[in-house]
Amino acid sequence: MAVRVGVLGATGAVGQRLIQLLDPHPEFEIAALTASESSAGKTYRQAAKWRVEGPIPEDVAEMTVTETDPDAVPDDVALIFSSLPSNVGAEVEPGFCEAGYVVSSNSSNGRMDDDVPLVIPEVNAEHLDLLEVQRDRRGWDGAMVKNPNCSTITFVPTLAALTDYGLEKVHVSTLQAVSGAGYDGVTSMEIIDNAIPYIGSEEDKLETESRKLLGEFDGASLTHNSMEVAASCNRIPTVDGHLENVWVETAEDLSPEAAKDAMREYPSLDLRSSPDPLIHVFEEPDRPQPRMDRNVGDGMAIAAGGHRESTFGLQYNCLAHNTLRGAAGASVLNGELLLENGYL
Amino acid sequence: MAVRVGVLGATGAVGQRLIQLLDPHPEFEIAALTASESSAGKTYRQAAKWRVEGPIPEDVAEMTVTETDPDAVPDDVALIFSSLPSNVGAEVEPGFCEAGYVVSSNSSNGRMDDDVPLVIPEVNAEHLDLLEVQRDRRGWDGAMVKNPNCSTITFVPTLAALTDYGLEKVHVSTLQAVSGAGYDGVTSMEIIDNAIPYIGSEEDKLETESRKLLGEFDGASLTHNSMEVAASCNRIPTVDGHLENVWVETAEDLSPEAAKDAMREYPSLDLRSSPDPLIHVFEEPDRPQPRMDRNVGDGMAIAAGGHRESTFGLQYNCLAHNTLRGAAGASVLNGELLLENGYL
Amino acid sequence: MAVRVGVLGATGAVGQRLIQLLDPHPEFEIAALTASESSAGKTYRQAAKWRVEGPIPEDVAEMTVTETDPDAVPDDVALIFSSLPSNVGAEVEPGFCEAGYVVSSNSSNGRMDDDVPLVIPEVNAEHLDLLEVQRDRRGWDGAMVKNPNCSTITFVPTLAALTDYGLEKVHVSTLQAVSGAGYDGVTSMEIIDNAIPYIGSEEDKLETESRKLLGEFDGASLTHNSMEVAASCNRIPTVDGHLENVWVETAEDLSPEAAKDAMREYPSLDLRSSPDPLIHVFEEPDRPQPRMDRNVGDGMAIAAGGHRESTFGLQYNCLAHNTLRGAAGASVLNGELLLENGYL
Amino acid sequence: MAVRVGVLGATGAVGQRLIQLLDPHPEFEIAALTASESSAGKTYRQAAKWRVEGPIPEDVAEMTVTETDPDAVPDDVALIFSSLPSNVGAEVEPGFCEAGYVVSSNSSNGRMDDDVPLVIPEVNAEHLDLLEVQRDRRGWDGAMVKNPNCSTITFVPTLAALTDYGLEKVHVSTLQAVSGAGYDGVTSMEIIDNAIPYIGSEEDKLETESRKLLGEFDGASLTHNSMEVAASCNRIPTVDGHLENVWVETAEDLSPEAAKDAMREYPSLDLRSSPDPLIHVFEEPDRPQPRMDRNVGDGMAIAAGGHRESTFGLQYNCLAHNTLRGAAGASVLNGELLLENGYL
Repeated sequence: MAVRVGVLGATGAVGQRLIQLLDPHPEFEIAALTASESSAGKTYRQAAKWRVEGPIPEDVAEMTVTETDPDAVPDDVALIFSSLPSNVGAEVEPGFCEAGYVVSSNSSNGRMDDDVPLVIPEVNAEHLDLLEVQRDRRGWDGAMVKNPNCSTITFVPTLAALTDYGLEKVHVSTLQAVSGAGYDGVTSMEIIDNAIPYIGSEEDKLETESRKLLGEFDGASLTHNSMEVAASCNRIPTVDGHLENVWVETAEDLSPEAAKDAMREYPSLDLRSSPDPLIHVFEEPDRPQPRMDRNVGDGMAIAAGGHRESTFGLQYNCLAHNTLRGAAGASVLNGELLLENGYL
Repeated sequence: MAVRVGVLGATGAVGQRLIQLLDPHPEFEIAALTASESSAGKTYRQAAKWRVEGPIPEDVAEMTVTETDPDAVPDDVALIFSSLPSNVGAEVEPGFCEAGYVVSSNSSNGRMDDDVPLVIPEVNAEHLDLLEVQRDRRGWDGAMVKNPNCSTITFVPTLAALTDYGLEKVHVSTLQAVSGAGYDGVTSMEIIDNAIPYIGSEEDKLETESRKLLGEFDGASLTHNSMEVAASCNRIPTVDGHLENVWVETAEDLSPEAAKDAMREYPSLDLRSSPDPLIHVFEEPDRPQPRMDRNVGDGMAIAAGGHRESTFGLQYNCLAHNTLRGAAGASVLNGELLLENGYL
Repeated sequence: MAVRVGVLGATGAVGQRLIQLLDPHPEFEIAALTASESSAGKTYRQAAKWRVEGPIPEDVAEMTVTETDPDAVPDDVALIFSSLPSNVGAEVEPGFCEAGYVVSSNSSNGRMDDDVPLVIPEVNAEHLDLLEVQRDRRGWDGAMVKNPNCSTITFVPTLAALTDYGLEKVHVSTLQAVSGAGYDGVTSMEIIDNAIPYIGSEEDKLETESRKLLGEFDGASLTHNSMEVAASCNRIPTVDGHLENVWVETAEDLSPEAAKDAMREYPSLDLRSSPDPLIHVFEEPDRPQPRMDRNVGDGMAIAAGGHRESTFGLQYNCLAHNTLRGAAGASVLNGELLLENGYL
Repeated sequence: MAVRVGVLGATGAVGQRLIQLLDPHPEFEIAALTASESSAGKTYRQAAKWRVEGPIPEDVAEMTVTETDPDAVPDDVALIFSSLPSNVGAEVEPGFCEAGYVVSSNSSNGRMDDDVPLVIPEVNAEHLDLLEVQRDRRGWDGAMVKNPNCSTITFVPTLAALTDYGLEKVHVSTLQAVSGAGYDGVTSMEIIDNAIPYIGSEEDKLETESRKLLGEFDGASLTHNSMEVAASCNRIPTVDGHLENVWVETAEDLSPEAAKDAMREYPSLDLRSSPDPLIHVFEEPDRPQPRMDRNVGDGMAIAAGGHRESTFGLQYNCLAHNTLRGAAGASVLNGELLLENGYL
């Protein structure tokens, strides 16, 4: 029987993607949709300006949107997907956890908290056990799991495949799609025939979240990875798909061929939304490219290519679909992991 | 009295920009235009598919295009601007030098030769004296000066401003405009809603030309700079203007403020095409941007911004107009330097 | 048992789309691939620069490409899909028909010939009987069917739905995607931040092919429709999907609501590639849009919207995926019609 | 001595263009800047997010922005340029006229009022005399002149050149740049790899304003032109420059050559911002194009091309820079006309 789930921030760009993924999902059943006060009481069709490909799923279209409040959500809902602006998330998500809901959240608030597992299932599923620490400390019946930022998700799996070589220094430069800023985030006047070498607080997310994701959990606390990461973030005129240039310096010698092998062989998980292979490695030096490759593995795989020796260590490029693998799909995958691990 | 000049490869994209810059130039007078065999004998209007803004200069339009051969160029021409495909350049440029012409070339052939000065006037005008070595060794009456690749020109002036701090390691990631590949270089199907993380042999140019440009000439030979450079090159959907993310590690401590001051104060030259200031420093963290800033200093300045402390040393972004400062304008500026230094 | 088919011009942009559609098609089996002389003898993987989403189908990748000659195609091939440049098509297609092959061609040569059926199955399947006239006149064992130009296919089905009202005058202005010009047809320098109000001989195709498609076949000859059509064609920076603004003046009064009903109810066919509904009618005034709606009906439907009263008659917009419904899919659909009608 | 002028809505997109044009203008001197309440009291530098090329003029940057109220504007200001949202314009512009200011407005409110001259100086300067009627009827010391919508301005001058042939029916399809919707009007998600066949109330403006502009003023009242116009409006991914496809049916025979001659010879005016020629006629069939041709005549000329015989009458394309000739430049030019005619 499908787990009944709710979506917080259901009318937003990531909320719409969540609905697109959850509606046909056999393990989940959409039972609650919340949004801001002005949408409460409307049907979803009235409340949302639907912007993703294909029509609104009919049954979802007629559901009534409620306020984002634990009391407005039916008790038999077991799992909450949250994609709220971080300030709103910080305010309301803890209330849901207190009220007993397990929350899989894409919002950036609280991601770096000591007792909040920040999880990419194929990378650090074992961090989920941090929930015991969280419940002890916070006295919650529910629980809170976060997925990282879209630009972090793009390159961390490729680094995870290389950890045996001893990660030391990482430089990453991003070419990010406009959908990463939400529907209204980037105006056309800003980006046509242009690029913007700045995305507020994005570089910090790449630098800190990556070290937490690749950290070690000893059952009691999490030690962040000792690698050092420097990021430079750019917005470019692409619709979907974040492309990243990566340089890695490792303790052990690491040839391009060894790196490709390690990425190709990096295991996926036996979860519905985890693609096999997880990392699609291209031999063509000019791939991956956003429009051509963002949909590998139904938008849930990481694409990598251009592996070559650099002046400093190894150099390669990677790409992921930022609103699927990097946001809505990441939260759904964490939901699947929570289900698999008996948290629901 | 204006110096009579010729343009090799006059019908190409950079050739057209050369004509646009040379036609109103008070120190130069266009006296010869060459192109491939199929264009020889036609008027320039017939031979060129004019693609830059504004009409073809009327007097140039009616000039007859000749083959690219020293014998086809009038003897009173003193200076040749060359923008040929590198394989053609390698074949025909030495013949012009042998025949006594001074050549200011944008073509990539021979740029790294020991006795060929690779020059950005504001950065290493003193390398021009290498021409004595060149003439001695090659027995030429003429001479050959090269300007670097467009993506190299974008970041080297900013590094030149920082040499006092002891340049050690540089990472640079580029977001390059389609015009850098010539008019037909990138198809629309390749680049709309897309980016290409590969430009053939471009990374090598950034890594090696930069070290030659910042090298020391002792009167006899040139020692390349000891810094190490790693480049990652991308093509994005912008028309003009190469944007670059730079990380620099230096021997001495270098704060973002000190770096901005050094760049702001870096001197321009008293040459017609050298803008003052040479480097335009932005305080806004999201600048420079290609469409907004490629025309600073009439397309001949370098724009820089986003100076910040990185995990490793200093981080900033820079931008230059790739077909003006990065190609045609670079050659014209070298022509002005040659004139100023008595080579014409 | 599947019909064995060949693809002429298999390495081109439409050729690749044909392979993408034919490989999983249960009624057809790819048995021959031809291309230009320089590709003959190579495997398809070697010969084609694969540019559509997803990998080359494995079995096709290893097939050997032959020259475009009837003798090079196995005798048990019954149906030939052709997507050749029109000058090549004019030269070689008749030879295939003479040799007994039935040809479903996307090439523009011969489309307006008296005895060549120009067919959109849902619009004028009955024109297929013109093949009897064709065989009589030309003495062919094979046969030749053409599909119209991509921009013609986009608006003709919407006009077909309105014929009961007496079509008199039609104005159509097109906003066409770059893929319509083939992979190398439009350079990025031509189209970024730009539009081109000219596509060679395209307007004539819209004006004449539409009248032939909506003409009457009396068993012996075809009378073109008496409506008058004026077209204005533009290229814009979209990848796929031709959008068209249409004004129609009819003999009978035609309200926007009646037009929408007629389009909604216009029947599709019981052929595998014919979508149901054929015409997807939007109520939102700002739809259809190329990126949002080009994939309705798996890229085989026509999208229409913005129906409103004009100063002159009725006004609306329509859209179709130009390389699917407008080219490769159109040829495949004609192949299905030929099979259904016993021509194979 | 320069006329002192004020700018209403000075921080908006058109307001910034107005400042860019007025600052170096020898006949005008910026003496007042107004904006919404939240900007009042700030310097212009603080209040405006400057988005046009080049820096804010230094003297303007330090001016204090006031509320949009006649009392806030110095008495020695003689001319007001207004670029307010139409609802705000409707509310505040009459107050300025009542207070004695002459207003040259780009706002759409009141354009179709009987006693408001809607003027393109080169087309219908004589309509300015309608101000006598206006003052009589409204009892104003000041006066109100409007310029038409940007998409109207693009095609009306080309029609004006053809009036001798008896304009009867006009169809126009527009391909409009994103800047026409203001800085935040079109999001990047809406327009990259896309087109939108709808711009709210735009078609009505083309259809009605054009007939008023080409109407006859008999000294007492204005009779609109009897031609009938049908418009279809589209937004495409270009930054600046509206391109339009036009079909015209005339009472007299009108050949493409005659139409080109009439456009070439259509007179400009002896006003500073009126370019000579007014209409730049291209012989190349694929011109004008937005990025290539929007700056002809410093962005104040109309570009036309592609003149050809249509199924119905004459067909051609035209283009104008929508924020220069189509908005800010149009208002400035009306200001120059008011000055020339003694209204200041």
